[in-house]
Amino acid sequence: MSATKRVISPSLENVLYDTIPVLDHGFVRVIDYMGNDSSIVQAARVSYGQGTKKTSEDVGLIRYLMRHRHTTPFEMCELKLHIKLPIFVARQWIRHRTASVNEYSGRYSIMSNEFYIPLNTDISGQSEINNQGRSNDCLPKEQSERVKQILIDDATTCYNHYTSLLNTDSSGNIIDPTLPSVSRELARMNLTVNYYTEWYWKINLHNLLRFLSLRSDSHAQKEIVYYATVILDLVKLWVPHTYDAFVEYNLESRTLSKTGMIIVKEMLKGNIPKREDYKLSVREWNELMDILQV
Amino acid sequence: MSATKRVISPSLENVLYDTIPVLDHGFVRVIDYMGNDSSIVQAARVSYGQGTKKTSEDVGLIRYLMRHRHTTPFEMCELKLHIKLPIFVARQWIRHRTASVNEYSGRYSIMSNEFYIPLNTDISGQSEINNQGRSNDCLPKEQSERVKQILIDDATTCYNHYTSLLNTDSSGNIIDPTLPSVSRELARMNLTVNYYTEWYWKINLHNLLRFLSLRSDSHAQKEIVYYATVILDLVKLWVPHTYDAFVEYNLESRTLSKTGMIIVKEMLKGNIPKREDYKLSVREWNELMDILQV
Amino acid sequence: MSATKRVISPSLENVLYDTIPVLDHGFVRVIDYMGNDSSIVQAARVSYGQGTKKTSEDVGLIRYLMRHRHTTPFEMCELKLHIKLPIFVARQWIRHRTASVNEYSGRYSIMSNEFYIPLNTDISGQSEINNQGRSNDCLPKEQSERVKQILIDDATTCYNHYTSLLNTDSSGNIIDPTLPSVSRELARMNLTVNYYTEWYWKINLHNLLRFLSLRSDSHAQKEIVYYATVILDLVKLWVPHTYDAFVEYNLESRTLSKTGMIIVKEMLKGNIPKREDYKLSVREWNELMDILQV
Amino acid sequence: MSATKRVISPSLENVLYDTIPVLDHGFVRVIDYMGNDSSIVQAARVSYGQGTKKTSEDVGLIRYLMRHRHTTPFEMCELKLHIKLPIFVARQWIRHRTASVNEYSGRYSIMSNEFYIPLNTDISGQSEINNQGRSNDCLPKEQSERVKQILIDDATTCYNHYTSLLNTDSSGNIIDPTLPSVSRELARMNLTVNYYTEWYWKINLHNLLRFLSLRSDSHAQKEIVYYATVILDLVKLWVPHTYDAFVEYNLESRTLSKTGMIIVKEMLKGNIPKREDYKLSVREWNELMDILQV
Repeated sequence: MSATKRVISPSLENVLYDTIPVLDHGFVRVIDYMGNDSSIVQAARVSYGQGTKKTSEDVGLIRYLMRHRHTTPFEMCELKLHIKLPIFVARQWIRHRTASVNEYSGRYSIMSNEFYIPLNTDISGQSEINNQGRSNDCLPKEQSERVKQILIDDATTCYNHYTSLLNTDSSGNIIDPTLPSVSRELARMNLTVNYYTEWYWKINLHNLLRFLSLRSDSHAQKEIVYYATVILDLVKLWVPHTYDAFVEYNLESRTLSKTGMIIVKEMLKGNIPKREDYKLSVREWNELMDILQV
Repeated sequence: MSATKRVISPSLENVLYDTIPVLDHGFVRVIDYMGNDSSIVQAARVSYGQGTKKTSEDVGLIRYLMRHRHTTPFEMCELKLHIKLPIFVARQWIRHRTASVNEYSGRYSIMSNEFYIPLNTDISGQSEINNQGRSNDCLPKEQSERVKQILIDDATTCYNHYTSLLNTDSSGNIIDPTLPSVSRELARMNLTVNYYTEWYWKINLHNLLRFLSLRSDSHAQKEIVYYATVILDLVKLWVPHTYDAFVEYNLESRTLSKTGMIIVKEMLKGNIPKREDYKLSVREWNELMDILQV
Repeated sequence: MSATKRVISPSLENVLYDTIPVLDHGFVRVIDYMGNDSSIVQAARVSYGQGTKKTSEDVGLIRYLMRHRHTTPFEMCELKLHIKLPIFVARQWIRHRTASVNEYSGRYSIMSNEFYIPLNTDISGQSEINNQGRSNDCLPKEQSERVKQILIDDATTCYNHYTSLLNTDSSGNIIDPTLPSVSRELARMNLTVNYYTEWYWKINLHNLLRFLSLRSDSHAQKEIVYYATVILDLVKLWVPHTYDAFVEYNLESRTLSKTGMIIVKEMLKGNIPKREDYKLSVREWNELMDILQV
Repeated sequence: MSATKRVISPSLENVLYDTIPVLDHGFVRVIDYMGNDSSIVQAARVSYGQGTKKTSEDVGLIRYLMRHRHTTPFEMCELKLHIKLPIFVARQWIRHRTASVNEYSGRYSIMSNEFYIPLNTDISGQSEINNQGRSNDCLPKEQSERVKQILIDDATTCYNHYTSLLNTDSSGNIIDPTLPSVSRELARMNLTVNYYTEWYWKINLHNLLRFLSLRSDSHAQKEIVYYATVILDLVKLWVPHTYDAFVEYNLESRTLSKTGMIIVKEMLKGNIPKREDYKLSVREWNELMDILQV
């Protein structure tokens, strides 16, 4: 422990450096953070010192900022995580550009023999509703065991050949002096995208919330949702008032289109609108009725 | 052909939509562009219409801007490329954040059976100089054929299992009705990182030059250097004066450290500086002498 | 006119380079653009050539992308504007960071004697509802004339002294050889923030829509709203399907909070919810009722 | 003081929240920071816990990263400053886009009556060498006193009219009940750009160094150089090894063009190159000779 004049987040300090498991070999670890709920208020007020002490007003201000898209004060907090994740998840994750990243390099270092195998309950067919996702119904156990065995066999074969191409053990010693050693940057191309990589990832709170909004969504791939869920819990520890406002005004809010608003107002008058009158597609009409649960 | 009042780059128009091959199955295609050399000059002068006509002064201004790090006018040109590239190259490429990207999605669509196999002349061992790269000496042919066979075999096995997991042909028809179909987002995790993906990539000229400066460097992985080389040629067609200035002041320029400058000045006075007197590491000293070719 | 193989937007071509007046001395001019509605569809499909021809499906896809926050295809279009605007408007504008800017420099060049004076109908007191804005009721004419006279007098005095400090006319000739000439970067500090500046501003369509969403809002300062309104019209010419989707799903959509959705569902059941039961502040409750117009 | 498990920078803690004066009314205050030199090393190694303890190797690694443009590890540190600065300085500053900013708002709040008046020693004419800057020779005292008096008079007049337009004192009370109160967002347009504003500014170390490289340069406006100089001293306290590497490989390094390198090599061989043989402009030739001090 060190002494600091900076603001702290006691609940996040409690889990600092802890390894929180995700998937079969992955994890999330908080490495560092800057600021807490008061930092948002402080920046919004361009105020003085460690921010005001009237917590009730602070909460109201944070809710106001979130509701009215005053996003810049949320940039005043920063989180740094150490994350271990499969390559195919990393490829989705990195599309969020407003973050700083240092990744383990397969050009410098030998990749570990760790790959992701889903649980039976996470193995299912293509969704018939969500074009890009999987169905909610998992496969029969016998079938999912077969799937897993294929994945395990191929990852294992690929890794053995990776090692054979490197011709180097993990201490850097030559295995078979009669064979050449292929460079790491070439040999790694034989690994499948469920192999694990790891990185340091640093992002400000505003962009983190954007990431969480998109990646905790039911349309996101289930594997990245698991990570988003863990990070959401960390946000709750770190900046609890911001977390509450985020749930209220973003995660569990719903946006109604111009036409959707017209329809809702009709319904509130007691009328029963018909889809045809509003030229909505069946899909869009159903999305609306689903939101309104009528 | 359409008529436009916009400025054009005749030489780039000539290759628009052409597929320029890179590696064994990859390519680069110019889809669209905005601006030409005159756009840089125009923005630098916050001037009027299609820019000044005095080409000689324009060249001088572009060189001045490049030399003195006035980078913002180079942001006024934009290039959009369609690129097909192996996943491991895509993972390096995407680290350049200041670009717009739309990638082929293995969640929506079935991946093609195309993977990268290096040429014999590109297969070599770990470099002893550059910690992250490969040596300049390629393997004996017999050995590189063995490497290629391993890569081909494993990619083929993985793809066959990918198809088997999908249980769907490329037209979307079920192959074996007695077997389940695993969702695309899951099945694809069995593919190796030398499989090809493709994307639209749009970037402004300033950030493109930054990309090219880093990725055409001898420390970059050879496979991405091949792409950078093709794009450099496109830049030469598109904005020839900017290209010349870029080569002069960036690609083939050299930066000397504070100590490096002191040493050069000593040498210019006819003195023979000794490494020990300047507390440089052997590595850094050699880098300096290499630059000065003495 | 030049011939190009690139996609064009015929309606935007019609106004290319036209000077569209805004405020008393300001303007917006389209200098260049990249792409049109089909470019968004093309990127979304990572498809081939100039995009698909089935316009009806394209419209549906654009609406789908907008509705489901698939924002990256909208980054594939780019707009470059030449804008003349008062410094205080420029200061709000520049907060949108994801754009490229080249501004007229008061360090190199002499500022023009042009400053913004609002119309009588735009001069009003502090709003009692919107803490940061002005009231909808303009001042009595006599009073607004007084306001304008003050602004004119002070701007004129400041500019005269600016010229006197420069001691240089607009052709760069010394005015009074017995006086010194103060550098431009110093002298300009005597100008008021309603003086006009100008810049080239280049931004992709996604970020432009974000700008327009925030700056055409009734909470934005009226002077920047005038610019946003002009640019919205340009967007309608340039990418009409995207414009329609933007109005439907963003500009005239409404977002209801988690609690707001609970209340709406209660009302749709015929119940009459009370504010106290939902712990909403009066302000937030009123915002909700205002949206629902009940 | 609080207890934290995070890494700290003891020397920066010492000056946290201190107000460091810049110009006549401006200041820089450190509000918060994330990381120290060890954080850069830690990210570069994607390593574990609080980083390695072997300081000598760490220093070498930081120097290596800086020399070879491995910039991403420097993004792992973050600094948050509270800054008070004249509007015309803020306008230059904000061009550095990769930062988070919350500025005092003249739409919400009444601007303070504080404006910048340069010291006699900072008042001079247009530079004859640097097109955008001022000369090194300051004006005769009598003349600079005249300049200052003009600036003071106009700023004072403008502020008095600003108050008169607001018709509100700093406590929000109406001054003259017979006059209308003009909204703040309108009234402020009567203030000159040497009026002070203030903001919170948060930026990562990599982008901060880029800012400092450009804004501590002799071509930057002297007023922003004063701020950059103060912040450089803070960087030295915060991350001393990075500071040293930055001075060595950036601030006091020199970049020689392709042609410049050819010329230097000729000179090192004892030859005396002539400008004409290399087709360099007089200006560029002089820049080169100036760097080489020959």
